[in-house]
Amino acid sequence: MSKVQPRTLSGFLELLPGRQAQFERMAAIIRESYALYGFTPLDTPLIESSEVLLAKGGGETEKQIYRFTKGDSDLSLRFDLTVPLAKYVSLNYGKLAFPFRRFQIGKVYRGERAQRGRFREFYQADIDIIGDGKLDISNEAEIPSIIYRTFTALGLRRFMICVNNRKVLNGFYAMLGLSEKSTEIMRTVDKLDKIGAEKVHSILEEELHVPKEQALEILRFVDIHGSSQEILTALEQYRGRHELFDQGLDELKTVVQYLAAFGVPEDHFAVDLAIARGLDYYTGTVYETTMLDHPEIGSICSGGRYDNLAEYYTDKQLPGVGISIGLTRLFFVLEDQGYLNDALNTAPADVLVLPMTEDMGPSITLATQLRAAGIRTQIHGEQKKFKQKMAYADKIGVPYIAILGEDEIKEGAASIKDMTSGEQKKLTYEQAVTEIKAGLALRNQGTPVLDK
Amino acid sequence: MSKVQPRTLSGFLELLPGRQAQFERMAAIIRESYALYGFTPLDTPLIESSEVLLAKGGGETEKQIYRFTKGDSDLSLRFDLTVPLAKYVSLNYGKLAFPFRRFQIGKVYRGERAQRGRFREFYQADIDIIGDGKLDISNEAEIPSIIYRTFTALGLRRFMICVNNRKVLNGFYAMLGLSEKSTEIMRTVDKLDKIGAEKVHSILEEELHVPKEQALEILRFVDIHGSSQEILTALEQYRGRHELFDQGLDELKTVVQYLAAFGVPEDHFAVDLAIARGLDYYTGTVYETTMLDHPEIGSICSGGRYDNLAEYYTDKQLPGVGISIGLTRLFFVLEDQGYLNDALNTAPADVLVLPMTEDMGPSITLATQLRAAGIRTQIHGEQKKFKQKMAYADKIGVPYIAILGEDEIKEGAASIKDMTSGEQKKLTYEQAVTEIKAGLALRNQGTPVLDK
Repeated sequence: MSKVQPRTLSGFLELLPGRQAQFERMAAIIRESYALYGFTPLDTPLIESSEVLLAKGGGETEKQIYRFTKGDSDLSLRFDLTVPLAKYVSLNYGKLAFPFRRFQIGKVYRGERAQRGRFREFYQADIDIIGDGKLDISNEAEIPSIIYRTFTALGLRRFMICVNNRKVLNGFYAMLGLSEKSTEIMRTVDKLDKIGAEKVHSILEEELHVPKEQALEILRFVDIHGSSQEILTALEQYRGRHELFDQGLDELKTVVQYLAAFGVPEDHFAVDLAIARGLDYYTGTVYETTMLDHPEIGSICSGGRYDNLAEYYTDKQLPGVGISIGLTRLFFVLEDQGYLNDALNTAPADVLVLPMTEDMGPSITLATQLRAAGIRTQIHGEQKKFKQKMAYADKIGVPYIAILGEDEIKEGAASIKDMTSGEQKKLTYEQAVTEIKAGLALRNQGTPVLDK
Repeated sequence: MSKVQPRTLSGFLELLPGRQAQFERMAAIIRESYALYGFTPLDTPLIESSEVLLAKGGGETEKQIYRFTKGDSDLSLRFDLTVPLAKYVSLNYGKLAFPFRRFQIGKVYRGERAQRGRFREFYQADIDIIGDGKLDISNEAEIPSIIYRTFTALGLRRFMICVNNRKVLNGFYAMLGLSEKSTEIMRTVDKLDKIGAEKVHSILEEELHVPKEQALEILRFVDIHGSSQEILTALEQYRGRHELFDQGLDELKTVVQYLAAFGVPEDHFAVDLAIARGLDYYTGTVYETTMLDHPEIGSICSGGRYDNLAEYYTDKQLPGVGISIGLTRLFFVLEDQGYLNDALNTAPADVLVLPMTEDMGPSITLATQLRAAGIRTQIHGEQKKFKQKMAYADKIGVPYIAILGEDEIKEGAASIKDMTSGEQKKLTYEQAVTEIKAGLALRNQGTPVLDK
């Protein structure tokens, strides 16, 4: 028979079993963390009607969409989890309780140019809190705590949650009478780190025709640095000059005020006036999260407050706040930078039972008892030499093996070998269960990520 | 702004939050059960190159495939999890340890005609054990135990795992010299329940030209019923007439022999000589699982032993055994038949904290403590009347609320209300954590399915 060459499409991540187990552990921790904050899991179709999915239309993403017809339906694969959420909330508005808190961890599709570390199919792990008409600022204040808890549970330590407020930015440009130019100004100011203050100043004056005095005020404003409290104090000097600014400053103060009660340590949080997160969508608090030792990776968890989740589907005002972790990319980066904890137990089983007699009954009985105690167990029933069986045990990296030869069976026992220490003991089935459970509890303490 | 009518495509299941929580619970139980048996999780792309995915070509499924082009790539959405597994194993052959045990729970796509209870996007929950060249019969003997454990953990009780062996069937027809007609004969015999023995007999003789004596022998054979032991004994009378039959009978005996050690009660297991499961693919033990009170639903978990997983991709002989649960369809049927346990805690949170003062600090501190103890907690910080907050609590079905008014805050306490009993107590934060944890442990004992 002529063969087809098996291959996986480029831009599509497909992991070997050990790596996949690490990925799953990370996803499970994110899921658990999101659930702790009272978010309910959602699962929406990967395919939507193009009319619905692309209601917003246009833009950079449209070229990347996987769009096709089936019968006479014009269909598209989802490219994020936000548009499907907007559809879901509009569609089920009457059946949901607001604020509606949902998380979704799912694959999305973007036909980007394939390159290292860029994926066409990738997981996003999103949370959003959607209000009906209004949404209290306390929801925005809670987000840094969710980010902190999630990344800490994964094992990350050296990261910084950076926060800003779009009302502070927009209010500041409004008080200078520069609202109309604010988009271009922010785009210019964004290059400060790359091109320097002098160059920014000259672009502001010469290209954007910002009067000198105001250009200097902008540069002073974006130069405000320090602790959260120092920044808030510095911002107080602008109070009273524009309502939107004052409101943003109050919101930012509320977010900072509740940090300690939310359990976020000060050294993992910063107010950063340079963060804007796109130019239209967000309207209040905005978030970025960076790895201190790898700023070049960019933000690993971003989001913010928006005023209108679903304006393309409904007249209802549905403000919300949400964040997203690009899980596939994060996993790729962590692997690439050597952050994955390879001491983690990623074997398919905790125990491999090796029957050494023709009658496998006793081996099966032991396996059944181990499984009843929650211990993941394989029975290796293949007709192979002991050496080959041990090679298999090594290859899957199983923590324990249980050998059942004639002697063990006569005694109602099993020889349990700890594959790390090499220690081997003859134990009754009950003892084996107890001993292995205790050993696994120690082994499984680690986090999927190891950060110095 | 003109609106687009939000909608979800027909044939695509999208659940409301409570139902989604039940679905997730079921999926989590299946995942845990598969993992207990030493299967490793895999995740393969939803999109594959059409050349690879459709290597087998032709057949009924091809019309149902979602196939499209992106750039100059001819792509298809996976329609099952077996072909991607075959690709994966061929592609990573040198890096895997055999027998390779993997599970995968994922969505697959078939553009079937939309009708009630039929889905175009649905979850399959599969396990497969793939051998390299050979695979011991003990793997086939283990499968009923996995089915039993999985459905029991879900809460199902009244189901039957039915097993047959294709070698017994093929060997039987071979000993009658009817191998060439066996496919048609089995197709006819399959209608026994519907059309009766007499009609089957007449089709065998008149349409398929089976000699009378052999037609009678076929009818006697398919009429073998009774306990597993009775059927095995009845089959012994055919021993020695054909090698394949004898081998199949030995395999069937091995499967039955180990049932008790694997923890499968006799009343959940039956040998059923009528089961064939398609006509080409399976070569050894075959499995079907039926709900005793709903035989009309058909098999809820099926599979079997096959000789060649990946013949389209590789010359390697890769025999395997696997089963599949059509999870989306199972969920639909269970909901439809009233099997879902609606007493299960499906709220997005276990506790809803209601701050009654402007300063939310104490409420946030309580929430942080509850979360640290693993209790899923929402803070309802909205500026609303107490009555509206209670309506929200009722709508999400939260088990506990924690009220923090001025009195409670002064005392360093919270008023904890059990929303089921209506009982309300003033407790310190530590007491609240202990009390709520104990209450949740009781509440969360239930299974997602309730079977009489």
